[in-house]
Amino acid sequence: MIQPVEIVAQPPLPRGFRFAAARAGLKRSGRSDFALIVADSPVSAAALFTANRVTAAPLIVDKEHLRATGGKVRVAAINSGNANCAVGQAGLDAAHATCAGVAQLFGCPPEQVFPSSTGIIGVPLPAEKLIAALPALAASLGSDFDHFQQVAQAILTTDTVEKIAFAHLDIDGKEVRLAGLCKGSGMIHPRLVPHATMLVFVLTDADVEPPVLDAYLRQAVEVSFNRISVDGDTSTNDTVLLLASGASGAVLGPDNSAFASALTGVCTSLARQIVADGEGITHVVELHIEGAATDAEALKVAKAIAHSPLVKTAWAGSDPNWGRLVAAIGNSCAQIDPDRIDIDFGALPICRNGARAPEFDEAAAHAYIAQREFSIFIQLHQGAGSCLFWTTDLTVEYIHINADYST
Amino acid sequence: MIQPVEIVAQPPLPRGFRFAAARAGLKRSGRSDFALIVADSPVSAAALFTANRVTAAPLIVDKEHLRATGGKVRVAAINSGNANCAVGQAGLDAAHATCAGVAQLFGCPPEQVFPSSTGIIGVPLPAEKLIAALPALAASLGSDFDHFQQVAQAILTTDTVEKIAFAHLDIDGKEVRLAGLCKGSGMIHPRLVPHATMLVFVLTDADVEPPVLDAYLRQAVEVSFNRISVDGDTSTNDTVLLLASGASGAVLGPDNSAFASALTGVCTSLARQIVADGEGITHVVELHIEGAATDAEALKVAKAIAHSPLVKTAWAGSDPNWGRLVAAIGNSCAQIDPDRIDIDFGALPICRNGARAPEFDEAAAHAYIAQREFSIFIQLHQGAGSCLFWTTDLTVEYIHINADYST
Repeated sequence: MIQPVEIVAQPPLPRGFRFAAARAGLKRSGRSDFALIVADSPVSAAALFTANRVTAAPLIVDKEHLRATGGKVRVAAINSGNANCAVGQAGLDAAHATCAGVAQLFGCPPEQVFPSSTGIIGVPLPAEKLIAALPALAASLGSDFDHFQQVAQAILTTDTVEKIAFAHLDIDGKEVRLAGLCKGSGMIHPRLVPHATMLVFVLTDADVEPPVLDAYLRQAVEVSFNRISVDGDTSTNDTVLLLASGASGAVLGPDNSAFASALTGVCTSLARQIVADGEGITHVVELHIEGAATDAEALKVAKAIAHSPLVKTAWAGSDPNWGRLVAAIGNSCAQIDPDRIDIDFGALPICRNGARAPEFDEAAAHAYIAQREFSIFIQLHQGAGSCLFWTTDLTVEYIHINADYST
Repeated sequence: MIQPVEIVAQPPLPRGFRFAAARAGLKRSGRSDFALIVADSPVSAAALFTANRVTAAPLIVDKEHLRATGGKVRVAAINSGNANCAVGQAGLDAAHATCAGVAQLFGCPPEQVFPSSTGIIGVPLPAEKLIAALPALAASLGSDFDHFQQVAQAILTTDTVEKIAFAHLDIDGKEVRLAGLCKGSGMIHPRLVPHATMLVFVLTDADVEPPVLDAYLRQAVEVSFNRISVDGDTSTNDTVLLLASGASGAVLGPDNSAFASALTGVCTSLARQIVADGEGITHVVELHIEGAATDAEALKVAKAIAHSPLVKTAWAGSDPNWGRLVAAIGNSCAQIDPDRIDIDFGALPICRNGARAPEFDEAAAHAYIAQREFSIFIQLHQGAGSCLFWTTDLTVEYIHINADYST
């Protein structure tokens, strides 16, 4: 069963960072749409980006900047309301102009600025609006929880709630803190390349060199953001940025399992929050694929299920139509034996050896999946491969959100 | 633009076949749900089946039977209302029992019977109901258009209209006739192997040996049924059966382009009719992918577009949000250059070099895709690869059809 996310009220934030958000005028709603995360000095950075071959301009600039600095970031500058994608050279120009404005304000090289954008694709980003908002942002920077939360709000688009997660651990007698914030609701099927319109920012005050930080991030992302899907569409803008300020004084080598575990915990919490706020969803489903030939094969099965409109609409109707699950498993291209598939909904036996379980109780099965969150266990009897994956149903409301067009 | 399907009123049917349909009691609605196509004597047969690794029991039996007979079929026995899939050994037993009943009635070996099923997955098929309906079916066999049409009706499930197509051509002074009928509305994304809960039956009175017939069928299916998608879910039961009675007296070798063309025409008409009757759809979209590195790469792009919920919901809203198309192209894994993608809606320039076309006219674009049928042209500038593909929007009604569950 999915564990509730435990958020400590106003938890202590990683030291070495300040936060601010403002209204730059990109969102029609007039809500805040531009935010800064500012490190006190250049900090270690690791980032993963979307596998979509069409990538937004800021991602191209981010990669250039991280290469130029060897993985150092002073400021993350994040706008919502416009993806700055599919606009040609104008997109790169807008991203560079924004970085130049930020760099001038904080007295750092433009390469130490990490731009991120989320919102509509194909519409030129008015960088001048972002630049005009910079003085107000600089004036309102702060390191309180309120400031952090304002950033979490400013980056939202179709999201209905802010998504934040925290952890802290003791390393060699020093308290290391982690804090993450993210956005994402539709176009959610991250394939982050060693891979995110999911934007994720995780901060820590551990002292970690960029290559080591990168290894920690890849490991955590693989079992969190790369294990969720809302609609199977991988965005052009997905980005996960991890910044380590070192302000805790705790120096980390490559094999600190406590830090890895805390980072994975923060990433998994954020990933689950994204799924739980998926566009129009009414059910969150935790898929346990077991007995696959390999872990990769298990992931294929999970993705085939998570991408099947017929499975997802059955869930929307709390319909225990397990035949659609079997069909989706068959479509996964994974190694399977149709006569050896077992399916359980929670503790309820549903399918045994590819056919209806003798104990199948339709009313109980219906009641179980009528819950907002439920778990499905699939045993393939092919080997020791497994995976855990989180996905959603597909509802009328999703269609309304994405088909609503006003001329 | 999609051509209207021209159906001659009561066209002449291929000689050598009789038809009947009855109510066996599988459908809750009480509509006809069991049909026979009976050849006057065993005829040449070629068949293609789903690539889903979970395949229904009748498909397993069909493959056995075609192998045993070297591609000869006397009777196709088709039920709707139950897919006879994911029921274990009981499924094979039910298919075999049905074949035995049919064989006894027509005095042929059971191996010359070709069973097909479509409907719910995971519920045992009551073969005894089918067998009980056989005497009435035998008594009502006929070769008129009315009889043919009754079969086309009996095989429907969530389809709203029957789907039939015809062609005739002259070969060596002899008139060769073709007639096709099919069903399919949801779970439509055929991948037929050399691939369909699409069931297709095409009949001809040409005289063709089974291996030659198989080659004609593969060629026709590749550019028709394998070029459509409603919801991206490949069924466990998809089947295309082509029967050639030889009753026209026209003997066909392997390279008759006129026959190939007529067969492709019938298959393409049926494939388009399936798309046009897709579950809940309000738009039919013809995708022209051009300038891909190869035809296979073009097909990857078409499928990525056809499977994107965000693209399909935009179409549902007649929203000319071409950015979602660009994102789907980027997700296709095909070789592309994001800065060289051109998109046109019909004759309207939408995107040039990966960005909004200078001539982009949002109101005109919206009006164009508000039509029930429209065409999208995508030029990738990578090579000479191309493909034509037909797909649909994704609507609230699709969700209602597939999420509606009554306990």
